[in-house]
Amino acid sequence: MTTTTDTPKYVYRFGNGRAEGDRNQTDLLGGKGANLNEMSRIGLPVPPGYTITTEACHYYVDYDGDWPNGMRDQVREGLRHIEEAMGKRLGNPKDPLLVSVRSGAAVSMPGMMDSVLNLGLNDDSVEGLAKQTGNERFAYDAYRRLIDMFGDVVVGIDRDRFENAIGTLKEEQKAERDIDLTADDLEELVQRYKTIYYEETGEPFPQAPAEQLERAINAVFDSWMNERAVRYREIKNITGLRGTAVTVQAMVFGNTGDASGTGVCFTRNPATGENELYGEFLQNAQGEDVVAGIRTPRDIQELQRAMPSIYEELQDICHRLEAHYGEMQDLEFTVQDGSLYILQTRDGKRTGPAALTIAVDMVDEGLIDEERAVKVLVEPDHLNQLLHPRFDADADYDDDILGEGLPASPGAAVGQAVFSAEEAERWNENGEEVILVRTETSPEDVGGMDAAEGILTSRGGMTSHAAVVARGWGKPCVAGCDDIVVDHEQKSFTNGEVTVEEGDWISIDGSTGDVIRGQQPLIEPELTGSFARFMSWVDKYQDIGVRTNADTAEDAQQALEFGAEGIGLCRTEHMFFGDERIAEMRRMILSESNEVKRDALDALRPYQRGDFEEIFRAMDGHPVTIRLLDPPLHEFLPTEADDQAALADRLNLPVEAIEEKVESLEEFNPMLGHRGCRLGVTRPEITRMQARAIFEAALDVQADGIDVQPEVMVPLVATAAEFDDQKAVIDEAAETVFEAHGATVDYQVGTMIEIPRAALQAGEIAEAADFFSFGTNDLTQMTFGFSRDDAGSFLPHYVDESFLEQDPFQALDQDGVGELVQIAVERGTARNEALKVGICGEHGGEPSSVAFCYDTGLDYVSCSPFRVPIARLAAAQAALTEGPGISSDGAAY
Amino acid sequence: MTTTTDTPKYVYRFGNGRAEGDRNQTDLLGGKGANLNEMSRIGLPVPPGYTITTEACHYYVDYDGDWPNGMRDQVREGLRHIEEAMGKRLGNPKDPLLVSVRSGAAVSMPGMMDSVLNLGLNDDSVEGLAKQTGNERFAYDAYRRLIDMFGDVVVGIDRDRFENAIGTLKEEQKAERDIDLTADDLEELVQRYKTIYYEETGEPFPQAPAEQLERAINAVFDSWMNERAVRYREIKNITGLRGTAVTVQAMVFGNTGDASGTGVCFTRNPATGENELYGEFLQNAQGEDVVAGIRTPRDIQELQRAMPSIYEELQDICHRLEAHYGEMQDLEFTVQDGSLYILQTRDGKRTGPAALTIAVDMVDEGLIDEERAVKVLVEPDHLNQLLHPRFDADADYDDDILGEGLPASPGAAVGQAVFSAEEAERWNENGEEVILVRTETSPEDVGGMDAAEGILTSRGGMTSHAAVVARGWGKPCVAGCDDIVVDHEQKSFTNGEVTVEEGDWISIDGSTGDVIRGQQPLIEPELTGSFARFMSWVDKYQDIGVRTNADTAEDAQQALEFGAEGIGLCRTEHMFFGDERIAEMRRMILSESNEVKRDALDALRPYQRGDFEEIFRAMDGHPVTIRLLDPPLHEFLPTEADDQAALADRLNLPVEAIEEKVESLEEFNPMLGHRGCRLGVTRPEITRMQARAIFEAALDVQADGIDVQPEVMVPLVATAAEFDDQKAVIDEAAETVFEAHGATVDYQVGTMIEIPRAALQAGEIAEAADFFSFGTNDLTQMTFGFSRDDAGSFLPHYVDESFLEQDPFQALDQDGVGELVQIAVERGTARNEALKVGICGEHGGEPSSVAFCYDTGLDYVSCSPFRVPIARLAAAQAALTEGPGISSDGAAY
Repeated sequence: MTTTTDTPKYVYRFGNGRAEGDRNQTDLLGGKGANLNEMSRIGLPVPPGYTITTEACHYYVDYDGDWPNGMRDQVREGLRHIEEAMGKRLGNPKDPLLVSVRSGAAVSMPGMMDSVLNLGLNDDSVEGLAKQTGNERFAYDAYRRLIDMFGDVVVGIDRDRFENAIGTLKEEQKAERDIDLTADDLEELVQRYKTIYYEETGEPFPQAPAEQLERAINAVFDSWMNERAVRYREIKNITGLRGTAVTVQAMVFGNTGDASGTGVCFTRNPATGENELYGEFLQNAQGEDVVAGIRTPRDIQELQRAMPSIYEELQDICHRLEAHYGEMQDLEFTVQDGSLYILQTRDGKRTGPAALTIAVDMVDEGLIDEERAVKVLVEPDHLNQLLHPRFDADADYDDDILGEGLPASPGAAVGQAVFSAEEAERWNENGEEVILVRTETSPEDVGGMDAAEGILTSRGGMTSHAAVVARGWGKPCVAGCDDIVVDHEQKSFTNGEVTVEEGDWISIDGSTGDVIRGQQPLIEPELTGSFARFMSWVDKYQDIGVRTNADTAEDAQQALEFGAEGIGLCRTEHMFFGDERIAEMRRMILSESNEVKRDALDALRPYQRGDFEEIFRAMDGHPVTIRLLDPPLHEFLPTEADDQAALADRLNLPVEAIEEKVESLEEFNPMLGHRGCRLGVTRPEITRMQARAIFEAALDVQADGIDVQPEVMVPLVATAAEFDDQKAVIDEAAETVFEAHGATVDYQVGTMIEIPRAALQAGEIAEAADFFSFGTNDLTQMTFGFSRDDAGSFLPHYVDESFLEQDPFQALDQDGVGELVQIAVERGTARNEALKVGICGEHGGEPSSVAFCYDTGLDYVSCSPFRVPIARLAAAQAALTEGPGISSDGAAY
Repeated sequence: MTTTTDTPKYVYRFGNGRAEGDRNQTDLLGGKGANLNEMSRIGLPVPPGYTITTEACHYYVDYDGDWPNGMRDQVREGLRHIEEAMGKRLGNPKDPLLVSVRSGAAVSMPGMMDSVLNLGLNDDSVEGLAKQTGNERFAYDAYRRLIDMFGDVVVGIDRDRFENAIGTLKEEQKAERDIDLTADDLEELVQRYKTIYYEETGEPFPQAPAEQLERAINAVFDSWMNERAVRYREIKNITGLRGTAVTVQAMVFGNTGDASGTGVCFTRNPATGENELYGEFLQNAQGEDVVAGIRTPRDIQELQRAMPSIYEELQDICHRLEAHYGEMQDLEFTVQDGSLYILQTRDGKRTGPAALTIAVDMVDEGLIDEERAVKVLVEPDHLNQLLHPRFDADADYDDDILGEGLPASPGAAVGQAVFSAEEAERWNENGEEVILVRTETSPEDVGGMDAAEGILTSRGGMTSHAAVVARGWGKPCVAGCDDIVVDHEQKSFTNGEVTVEEGDWISIDGSTGDVIRGQQPLIEPELTGSFARFMSWVDKYQDIGVRTNADTAEDAQQALEFGAEGIGLCRTEHMFFGDERIAEMRRMILSESNEVKRDALDALRPYQRGDFEEIFRAMDGHPVTIRLLDPPLHEFLPTEADDQAALADRLNLPVEAIEEKVESLEEFNPMLGHRGCRLGVTRPEITRMQARAIFEAALDVQADGIDVQPEVMVPLVATAAEFDDQKAVIDEAAETVFEAHGATVDYQVGTMIEIPRAALQAGEIAEAADFFSFGTNDLTQMTFGFSRDDAGSFLPHYVDESFLEQDPFQALDQDGVGELVQIAVERGTARNEALKVGICGEHGGEPSSVAFCYDTGLDYVSCSPFRVPIARLAAAQAALTEGPGISSDGAAY
């Protein structure tokens, strides 16, 4: 930094088609200030004003309320600039200039900081304003608002005092609404407000406009450090800002007559994306009137009839804004006596379908290029909306909410409640649409789950059976809704107030976790040609692989259609279910005889081989990562007495033997128990069987000309020794199969990194591994010490109260879990340059996590089929974004 | 390194009171070689020989069997040295020199590498030997042994072939034992061995002694890289060694007549420490005869009569060795024709009481100083033996073992089996000694546990209720012994073969996990004055604090007596048990009304305050770290239907309400559930109550002139926000109490670091914390993903098969968990210089973990009272040891 003797620039003036600042200066001028400067710069009608920089605020805070040298002169010049542009003077008793003083930081902090309007009014100028506008009521109303706001913001008077005063007056005057108060009433109110002001401060309301202005500026600076703003920045983790900018701007009024008005307007339809103005306006009204809902605003299209030239000008401005910003805009305007002023513009929020339509249209219209469409115009969550049915965003069903569970699988569903898988299938066969409601689901329920529109469980977490299966299928699911108690015998559930019986209609939103009484209208997803075009653009920028988590050929097929480049996680546990299979599995677990065990495993192998063959065929030319058996063995044994008796019968064993085995396998903390490679290490015969099934399937399929790329993945490794042991078993199985078949196939052996220790020991583990796949579900559980299934009792509180910015099971915790991922990547690739690194936890489909994976140098992410497009877009956006984004979840404006 | 043109020295000669090497050269000469050189150097009668360095081995391995330049000449000189010293020549047909070739690395690898004896014999020299010794049988026996060993070690002939040959010959000659074979028989056997050798190798047995020697040296070099040796080093994690040294040494024989013999001898009694020779010898015998157990050796004291001058010489040598090595020695000797030779010496293993006696005696005798006594002569585990009853180390109860569980609390106990806490108390009142046998224990069982000599459970791990309570009391406990099934109704347990009924005697060893049938003789601990003297020496070198984990004033008192400097962990959960307390606790948990909750907590506070007062009084002048409530709430609710009904009755609630609450609090993985500070965060009233009880107790006690130093510890923190939140509640409670009492007390607020994420986020957490205490139990569970309670199904396998060097719940895993500790210390102290750092996991009393804590810069370790002396000794030893020790569990010799 070089030192200069020039006074730094603290004030940026704008208005009259010029500006000293521009939109790139949000750090210095705040979002609002930068955009006002920008609009003025490109010639849009913006009331003249000036913006005081965030640097000035920083100085003010540092020096306990002093202004930096030179700022006072610049502020004075700024005011002169406004006065000249408006042809009015602040405090002129005949025709006063009124100004507003507003805050605005580089990151939006809605409602956190203060503003003061109508500055420049005093006992004299209020009368000048009344005469000048011919509207006494308007003038006194403006004055009393000034005293109220100034009193609150600048000197800290409790607003209730002013509220009470107006309430009392309304009673006295028998006025129902504020608007029923007359000019005289308001003049009286000003007197009462001034009295309150005097009582509270011991000084009269300041009459000097310059004093008003200076104190208002200081009050906005002060508001940067007020408790709620500081807390907000802490909560949102907003750091590195210098302070708030302050914009002083000429007031314009929409309530000076019928040639005036105010409105808000989107440049395109934010619900559908249609290219037409969308919004509403009120004639002879102020912005607050729209907000207060006293009068019903009119559709913006009617402005065409009411004020044809204004409409035309507005339309023109909208086109210019879109062309200039390359984005659909959401703007506020005021018409004062036939002149249009734009008070604010920002990128408009929109639905998923609208986002896609707008992006593709704007490219076609030549307003933006494909890169911008991908990088900015469509958010990953927009695609999520596109892929699943949803409820109308405007629907208000608050009164019908029965409970809130975990948003376990996105999309909305409506159906009649049924309480067993069998019922679900039967009702479905009769053409009914049902929601399957269970305490929790198990593998036997999959038929019913498939038959249902959606699934609701009262227990279990985001990785519960219901959640995992539903996500794989793209079927809506609300899991772990502990607001309700399910009574399977009575076929009903209750939230304590409302009881839902079998056949009653309910609606669930798997994107929010809402459970709603009755039939909410559904909006079905529609994948138009625009989707395919857009995804083809995404493809150009996507610079990290996207694979899918798929356990069946059907899921794999679905994911391929969405653009998956391989399978990153094929779980094998479901291959042990199904009548014949589970019987053999149980025989294997229960037998003490090695011969019987071997026999049972031999019987299981062909089933697995068949499953693998189907998947390999579906994934011709793509890698398939197969995870060896992961869950603890007790998950495969029946816990109900009936089932145990049946099993005893079938296996010709005393039922006590089964009870005893079940009990002996029971675990206090199954998550941390005898599972994953710990099974493979203590029972290598299971690993051997699975590996052989994989290689046999691969050779069979390869013989048919299929390009098969098996990757065998060892789960839950904590030590290099475990991996080395399992790799030896797998390699030996490969050799055995290759010899028997007289053919070979290329394969890889790698491991999940899902235990903190494995991340730390990644160097040692990497030496023999072909790939790492981060299992961030378990890694999050162990790094936090949070059981995902049990965290429902405190995690929502943690997120609500900002102990955590986000649910770490949804968005990867970059500080903790993320550091372990980084450590593992660093250490792993340092020891083994060829190491391939991916992620297959749920986070693989969550945009901020995908960006993190990209920044960390992962080779691919893997997620459930219906998240593949989302991950692809997030990946493309990450590649198009230099470095990490803004360190907050606030928008830049 | 400077380069020199001199040939490096590969051969170190010793004998005749001189040596080229010394005991400090174990890296270069191996343990055996270095000590043979040393003994020769100090003038002890060692058969002459030379040691080839490990560097030579390293070269040999690197260059595929080549000897480095110059080594051949040095080996020739070495042989000449032996020949001159012995006055014999290798291969001299009239009077041959015989030599042995033995391996020996820097770290002991028993049985892993090869040796060849009797080299120098061939068809000619065997007759010379026979004539020279006048013992033909001896000569041919030596020759056939050479062919056998050479055949096995050098050319890899299966030993069975030689075994079969001697077996056949014995049958032919009707000889029962080897010794019954005559000289002629053995001459015939030599012929048959030579035939075998020829058949197997296609070449005759080499007759040139020089060839024999060279090939034997190479075979020993080769054995360094044989499969079992490589695997052994892997398993024991022995790294950084250059190879094995090879010692070539003149053979001496103890079987040449009655003026010959062989024996082993400790310089002091290894069982009691008494200062007298201890050992055994055999006249006219070889070492193998002692091992083979064919003849019964005689007590070493009898040597005084049998060979008085030899005994005297041996005694003198023992004194010289002790003075020289500063350690009790374990040596091997041979007497050949009236001349004594020492073949080996090493530090002797001994019992705990012996170690203490020897250490104190040797200081008193002026042989060593106190520092050496502390640093070397007593191992921490020796103190463990001293503090607890134990079984005789020589007792052989293998046939009576009923099962093996976890060594949950050290010490041995004998008693009659009882199966309920009530029975234990009743039997105990009748003067019986009992072992309480339970599936698992719960807080209601503490009375019976106290009444029992020891505790045996068939379920639960090292942190189960039984284990934790027993360790705190220093009472023997074997936990999680899943070899047995307990039937509480039948009052019996069985291991499938043996059934133990109520009243049957059993013995348990809480140091090994053994469960034994019948009454094993117990050796009671005896804390002599030597103990106090020794600990006072320890105190001088102990350079890291040692605190105790104690929940009661009694435990605290016990720990103080053992030298604890404070309480590092006072758990508060037990303060919620006891009839009245648990009732209030349950009322608090079950009530929906805030008023009732508050009321219940108000009722609980005085109990807690009382407990804290007692502990503060006991710990006058010492810090007391109190951990806030840690376990999940469901642990406080009854799970049995009867108990639930009784509770419903008492609280006047429908039993369904209780069932429902119990069910709703149930967790899949309680270890990762709603516990620790997650309770405090969601139910701040609990933290508030506990904090107030602490401060009230502190003020009360302080008013009596007690120096009270409370440290409030927040458990299970994963984020800085949790700690900050709980600290605010604690500080506010302090303020409230201080105001009410009009007095203050100094206090600290800190946190457990027991979650991986907390270790990573230590910098953030440290900003507001006064101290960290590593909860390495939970940290190990989460870093490994091992539930301690469930790991019994695979962890023993992992340790047995060397997937892990040690059980990470016993010795801190320095690679994984240790790295997290280091990270946390680094980051924590970087942000907060004043941060105090300790450890309160079970590892705080385990010697290698204490050393790690010292090296990592921790301020203190904390462990259960009976481990305090052990931790103190380990701490002193760590301070006396520069840097980390040898990276293996093998001894240096």
